[in-house]
Amino acid sequence: MRIARFSIDGNVAFGAVEGDGPDGLVLDIIKGIPYADFELSGTKVPLSKVRLLPPVLPNKVVAIGRNYAEHAKELGNAIVDDQGRPEPPVAFFKPTTSVIGSGDAIEYPSFSDELHHEAELAVVIGRMCREVPRERVKDVIFGYTCANDVTARDVQKREKQWARAKGFDTSCPLGPWVETELDPSDLAIQATVNGEQRQLGRTADMIRSIEELVVHITEAMTLLPGDVILTGTPAGVGPLNVGDEVAVTIEGIGTLTNKVIKRG
Amino acid sequence: MRIARFSIDGNVAFGAVEGDGPDGLVLDIIKGIPYADFELSGTKVPLSKVRLLPPVLPNKVVAIGRNYAEHAKELGNAIVDDQGRPEPPVAFFKPTTSVIGSGDAIEYPSFSDELHHEAELAVVIGRMCREVPRERVKDVIFGYTCANDVTARDVQKREKQWARAKGFDTSCPLGPWVETELDPSDLAIQATVNGEQRQLGRTADMIRSIEELVVHITEAMTLLPGDVILTGTPAGVGPLNVGDEVAVTIEGIGTLTNKVIKRG
Repeated sequence: MRIARFSIDGNVAFGAVEGDGPDGLVLDIIKGIPYADFELSGTKVPLSKVRLLPPVLPNKVVAIGRNYAEHAKELGNAIVDDQGRPEPPVAFFKPTTSVIGSGDAIEYPSFSDELHHEAELAVVIGRMCREVPRERVKDVIFGYTCANDVTARDVQKREKQWARAKGFDTSCPLGPWVETELDPSDLAIQATVNGEQRQLGRTADMIRSIEELVVHITEAMTLLPGDVILTGTPAGVGPLNVGDEVAVTIEGIGTLTNKVIKRG
Repeated sequence: MRIARFSIDGNVAFGAVEGDGPDGLVLDIIKGIPYADFELSGTKVPLSKVRLLPPVLPNKVVAIGRNYAEHAKELGNAIVDDQGRPEPPVAFFKPTTSVIGSGDAIEYPSFSDELHHEAELAVVIGRMCREVPRERVKDVIFGYTCANDVTARDVQKREKQWARAKGFDTSCPLGPWVETELDPSDLAIQATVNGEQRQLGRTADMIRSIEELVVHITEAMTLLPGDVILTGTPAGVGPLNVGDEVAVTIEGIGTLTNKVIKRG
């Protein structure tokens, strides 16, 4: 099931996305909240009449860097240490104030001259959990959505920790909705800018699997329903400029689209 | 005014701390929430009868590394680059799931063998704000509390970004309360372990002032009421072991005390 969060006439709701064609998509409004028991109301609104919101309200977004070998290479980062041992996953946070939905604008920050897109598969957590064993990871996942780990690359190079480079307002587009029935193990993941392909990879090429990432993160911290894990970006990251439209498409989920505007 | 958050008989409330002696402290329960207009109810409970909770409910905690020269030196970190220019502030996040109050236990994480205390002055934000000019910083600050930026030092050395090393559950003790009337520019800040002094510094020795930090952070991101900025730790950081009691005392605020236990 594809679950969207949206506003219509000033009201905010969750809805199940039904239909196939871009014109035929409708939302069946959900009674209750998707993380607990819920039912469909049968009240339907066309997708074209609503404003999509971020499909989840995370307490935190944990992002993983350097999880595709070709991308680590393009930024000159080693994935093994001097002795040839794998480097541990790079884990950092994006704050809730950075989250926007599909159709919302990415605001080019004033302190950067080099904004980059990073298309990523996002895992949405469905249950409060800590120290999740590998074989239970599937039980704590609610679904998957598309993410763009928008990065001020110049700031990332200058500042040793990435709170500003990857945590500025609007730097975490998520959407368009959460797909709850999906095998994430080998999906095409793509970013286009103004319709031109920039990134293309497959989730099968992740260095660490989703299971490994959930184990690694929850070894340290509790995840809450709605928390999001960004699983890293494939090769092909590149610049975003004011006026650009960037789209992240993941097979089986859909397309997350955002325009880049000057911060006003 | 000193504002605490606490629970008593299963109810959670804010209260103004009154009185001077450790036995004479009472809480005057607040009607409403401290960030908006509020009044004191006149209903008083002795501090000894309540459980203190974290005095704020942050949406995010932004922490600053290497903000005292002597501490940067003890960890072998440069505060100027090869050309002698100051390094930019090191800014990272601690998640809300890491926040605990005074009297709560720090759980020694399973993935570390080297836990360290880091006593820090915490700034509590009172207003939603972004791009705060230096001269308006005082207007967005609600008050100050004590923090312990508990760090898995071995993990911090191994993992390039610090989400796990500084973001594990219980790694962000805050408290005992928020002092809203305080000049933070030159306060003694101290950490003791089992009563023995480990860290002693003065906030006057911060490399970046609170004004500079708020400008730097809000250049990138919106801060919300209750958000917290940790302003860095003075020299003297050192190990915490299971069974230790660590106390952070800041002049004019009070003492934040936490025991270290094995994660159960």
